[in-house]
Amino acid sequence: MTKLLDGINSPADIKEIPAAQLPALAEELRQDMISMVKVTGGHLASSLGAVELTIALHRVFDAPADKIIWDVGHQAYAHKMLTGRREQFATQRQYGGLSGFPARDESPYDSFGAGHASTSISAALGMATARDLSGESYHIISVIGDGSIGGGMALEALNNTGASGTKIIIVLNDNGMSISPTVGAIAKLLRKVRFNRRYYQANEGSKRVLRAIPLGKQLLRLAGKIKQSMKGFFIHNTLWEDFGLAYMGPIDGHNIAELESALKQARSYAHKAILVHVVTTKGRGYGPAEDDAVCFHGIAPEGSAAKSAPSYSQVFARSTLEMMRRDKSIAIITAAMPEGNCLEPIQQEFPKRVFDVGICEQHAVTFAAGLAAQGIKPIVAIYSTFLQRSLDQIIHDVCLQKLPVTFAVDRGGIVGDDGKTHQGLFDLSYLPLVPDMVLASPKDENELHHLLYTAVYSGRPMAVRYARGCGLGVPMDQEFQTIPIGSAEILRRGAHVTLAGIGTCVATALAAAEILGSKGIETTVVNARFASPLDCTTLTEAARATKRLVTIEENVLRGGFGSAVLAMLEQASIDGLNAHCIGIPDEFVEHGTQAILRAKYGLDAQGIARRVQALFPELGLCK
Amino acid sequence: MTKLLDGINSPADIKEIPAAQLPALAEELRQDMISMVKVTGGHLASSLGAVELTIALHRVFDAPADKIIWDVGHQAYAHKMLTGRREQFATQRQYGGLSGFPARDESPYDSFGAGHASTSISAALGMATARDLSGESYHIISVIGDGSIGGGMALEALNNTGASGTKIIIVLNDNGMSISPTVGAIAKLLRKVRFNRRYYQANEGSKRVLRAIPLGKQLLRLAGKIKQSMKGFFIHNTLWEDFGLAYMGPIDGHNIAELESALKQARSYAHKAILVHVVTTKGRGYGPAEDDAVCFHGIAPEGSAAKSAPSYSQVFARSTLEMMRRDKSIAIITAAMPEGNCLEPIQQEFPKRVFDVGICEQHAVTFAAGLAAQGIKPIVAIYSTFLQRSLDQIIHDVCLQKLPVTFAVDRGGIVGDDGKTHQGLFDLSYLPLVPDMVLASPKDENELHHLLYTAVYSGRPMAVRYARGCGLGVPMDQEFQTIPIGSAEILRRGAHVTLAGIGTCVATALAAAEILGSKGIETTVVNARFASPLDCTTLTEAARATKRLVTIEENVLRGGFGSAVLAMLEQASIDGLNAHCIGIPDEFVEHGTQAILRAKYGLDAQGIARRVQALFPELGLCK
Repeated sequence: MTKLLDGINSPADIKEIPAAQLPALAEELRQDMISMVKVTGGHLASSLGAVELTIALHRVFDAPADKIIWDVGHQAYAHKMLTGRREQFATQRQYGGLSGFPARDESPYDSFGAGHASTSISAALGMATARDLSGESYHIISVIGDGSIGGGMALEALNNTGASGTKIIIVLNDNGMSISPTVGAIAKLLRKVRFNRRYYQANEGSKRVLRAIPLGKQLLRLAGKIKQSMKGFFIHNTLWEDFGLAYMGPIDGHNIAELESALKQARSYAHKAILVHVVTTKGRGYGPAEDDAVCFHGIAPEGSAAKSAPSYSQVFARSTLEMMRRDKSIAIITAAMPEGNCLEPIQQEFPKRVFDVGICEQHAVTFAAGLAAQGIKPIVAIYSTFLQRSLDQIIHDVCLQKLPVTFAVDRGGIVGDDGKTHQGLFDLSYLPLVPDMVLASPKDENELHHLLYTAVYSGRPMAVRYARGCGLGVPMDQEFQTIPIGSAEILRRGAHVTLAGIGTCVATALAAAEILGSKGIETTVVNARFASPLDCTTLTEAARATKRLVTIEENVLRGGFGSAVLAMLEQASIDGLNAHCIGIPDEFVEHGTQAILRAKYGLDAQGIARRVQALFPELGLCK
Repeated sequence: MTKLLDGINSPADIKEIPAAQLPALAEELRQDMISMVKVTGGHLASSLGAVELTIALHRVFDAPADKIIWDVGHQAYAHKMLTGRREQFATQRQYGGLSGFPARDESPYDSFGAGHASTSISAALGMATARDLSGESYHIISVIGDGSIGGGMALEALNNTGASGTKIIIVLNDNGMSISPTVGAIAKLLRKVRFNRRYYQANEGSKRVLRAIPLGKQLLRLAGKIKQSMKGFFIHNTLWEDFGLAYMGPIDGHNIAELESALKQARSYAHKAILVHVVTTKGRGYGPAEDDAVCFHGIAPEGSAAKSAPSYSQVFARSTLEMMRRDKSIAIITAAMPEGNCLEPIQQEFPKRVFDVGICEQHAVTFAAGLAAQGIKPIVAIYSTFLQRSLDQIIHDVCLQKLPVTFAVDRGGIVGDDGKTHQGLFDLSYLPLVPDMVLASPKDENELHHLLYTAVYSGRPMAVRYARGCGLGVPMDQEFQTIPIGSAEILRRGAHVTLAGIGTCVATALAAAEILGSKGIETTVVNARFASPLDCTTLTEAARATKRLVTIEENVLRGGFGSAVLAMLEQASIDGLNAHCIGIPDEFVEHGTQAILRAKYGLDAQGIARRVQALFPELGLCK
């Protein structure tokens, strides 16, 4: 059967479709999306909710001349399929295939890349300002969710946009959800509006409405009389109007005609920035996703391998729950990631000690510093890539004041399918540069258990960085142990070469040592465990004994664990030492499975073994 | 003559002073402050504006049991003088003396340190949450300016505070100024309120007010009738109420009785967080500062040495202005620092191409990325310490998309009197860890001129880091030159040791070479110029020739320029090479003059010469 989608090669084709057939087009998009995401995995629910909005946007505006900017990018699948990428869509999130997010280098229709939240209004204002400086006149549309708009940089951008007089169109795609239900005062306001459409329809043309109600004219006259003493009292401003924007809404985000009408009005509104409030249902049109939008936010491909061991995130949550049962002064903070951080069981048992602050990583860290200042032991659980937002707060509010905050840095290292925007490949550089910050990374899930305990009771700022995915399946200790700060351990001794790994790279180093052993190369393997402070004694002794040392980390080499080891060893002045670092070179790492990417960067056991042999050809003689 | 202040050793004493004498106390505080800041330098105007507010706060609340958190801390001088630090106040900002900012390790009355803007509401909410978890009942007051409250993390915190139901008191100290006049939509709203006090007084008890006006009762009945269809239409919400806070104000911030009354009401308001809007005059009570609050925001001590050369900031601005005259596609972005960045002449000549976005470093960077995406050449001018707020945007929005944004990183290195919160000692670590980021730092102001030009026309993300204070007084070239990316230069050749400096450390290295020369030690001096990418050829050749190499940088050693050079040289495998790094160890650097601090850390010429002799005792034989 011929599909409507078969005739769509660019947005121009969407404009040709009769209005009556648009619901069928939406249905086709949903079916394609569901069947493809079952294979590729991906962020399904957000994109399902934005199907009609995407169709309407591409009918009303002329991309790529007009610029549509998708905040975060979770909701951009229909956009990709309608802009010439339907054929390739089955490759999304696969190594070498389409990105799961908008990307400027993938398509001219992706006018600004995304992955992290709350960036689109700043980008839109910048692009619009460039447009105005150049005397051009295209339209710029930021499509942003109700979760993202509460992020600090989005609010900064709103504050600037409203005052600038620059024309951009902000489409607030309000489904009441980040990944979890959206939190915060703004979310509460939106909830009120969603359930009471009349509220804001009245506001749109308040005088017209007043005239239409009994006694309204009298009211208007009264309003005029007392306007001077009651300025502003009569004309209700929405939050968005207080921010200096025009406001339209709420619009039914699944009614294409209503959407097109609203977007056309917004397009022709010339005075200043306008916010179009669109209400959608996350997961729309796919029963399971509508019923459980949280679970269907991001889904794994069908037939994904059964897990043999708990994930590091699960172990983190279990260990934290256990500590919280024993110590009521422990609290946990998440930035809109209770599911990703596996916190639901803790939320259920200790709802008053779990704080979801929304997509607000800056606030999350200083909020934790405030807790710590008054004797609470806070654990801030944020993915490595998102913690980049908090560097200044980590420096200025936590470490400078030596406040004992624990950072649970999830998704450290190669994260895989989410790709460039989400890799956790910088934290071993940006965290230890901060004075007084302790940074550890466990070799397995049992060490994670003990390092978390160590951090919480260390009385100082300490980060524990752990990987995405499953642990090694090692036995878990019941009790907690304190691991001395800055202590490495030697797991294996050999005369020829030392492999010093951190985090998941320790297990890989052990596997590489086996391979090397089969070739007659005897290897010492050090679990460095702490990126800061380093265990100078253990590392120096191992280097002195073997004269050859290779550090291994899933992090950029610049400023990372290995560079710190090299600097430390330089001070030790070991005669004839030959030291090298394995890690990520100076580039952004694309998407693909963790296994593919580790192999690509020589971070799997075979890669490490090969590299050791290449670095030290004299060891070939050992065989 | 006995002063009232002589009898005040703690806030308890302030409560004993009869109300009639409070204006005299305020006057004494101002006179002390003015005379002392003339000696010490400091942030005078903000503190002058907050004198009555500080007195009222300490009379109504019981610090340190109640926690007063000063956002930024520029306005906290009266607080310091009233909390047992008046005697020491003349030491403020001096090496070993009081900090110019609140600091937890300085006094129990400084409940949370500050220096960067917009942190106090997050800290207050964290402390209040800890209080509630512990079942305690003290008060927590965040005192935040109208400039700071527009910062993203403050807005994140407001959004969380309003939804949390947690009781904190936010005192909005609204003087219409950051350092420059506050920008943005929120500032516009505040401006309206400031000039129309009736507006919000009406709002405080809207029904009461309605009853008091002609026809008001009729209006109220009408309101009741149509409430269902017009929900929210009648009751004006302020922005703050939209954020879920109670609101009081505006209050005359120089009327102590009015302030005390308002603060007592806020103290007894138990339901949720409340915002008390206090209107003050920056520089109040000191004619020159009131007339020019921008200029008197921060002042240098009287008798400061006359400047022999233009500051790096001035050279930056002159060079930028010159480029903007030639190329209308260049725009410049500042985050509330047009004076610090010396942008006034550019604002005058090209008002449409200078963007002051307010204290919004995150938005500033992504706004620039948007400009760059559409063909404008943006220069983002932000101090090193504040650019820490933008790491994620630099990674995710600029470098990942390879957008050609120039970063003018002012105040890189030791900044001196502002101390721990303001040192620019991390950027040589946190910028080059980002793939595709070019990072240069000029040896003098003429090189700054050329590096800025190089950056703007490099077509890629590039940061130019320069120092606080005066240049070297070198002749300035008229024309611009492009300096090849990643090129170092050898300034002097000697056989015994290579000193590889970056930025201001190059001049210091040359001076150290003179000292060493007088002792018979022959020195090669390299102006590394680029921290990333490094000039591997030049640095390696110099190291190979001298076998001894010392890197010198004003930055933490961890992940900095020196560690990158060591890692690079390790790859070069130079037999018998002995390499070391001079820089800042793993600690926060206190306040004091640049000269004192450079001497302390061995970053002056004598220190470097001594260090070289200590590192290479065999060179003593050269003498």
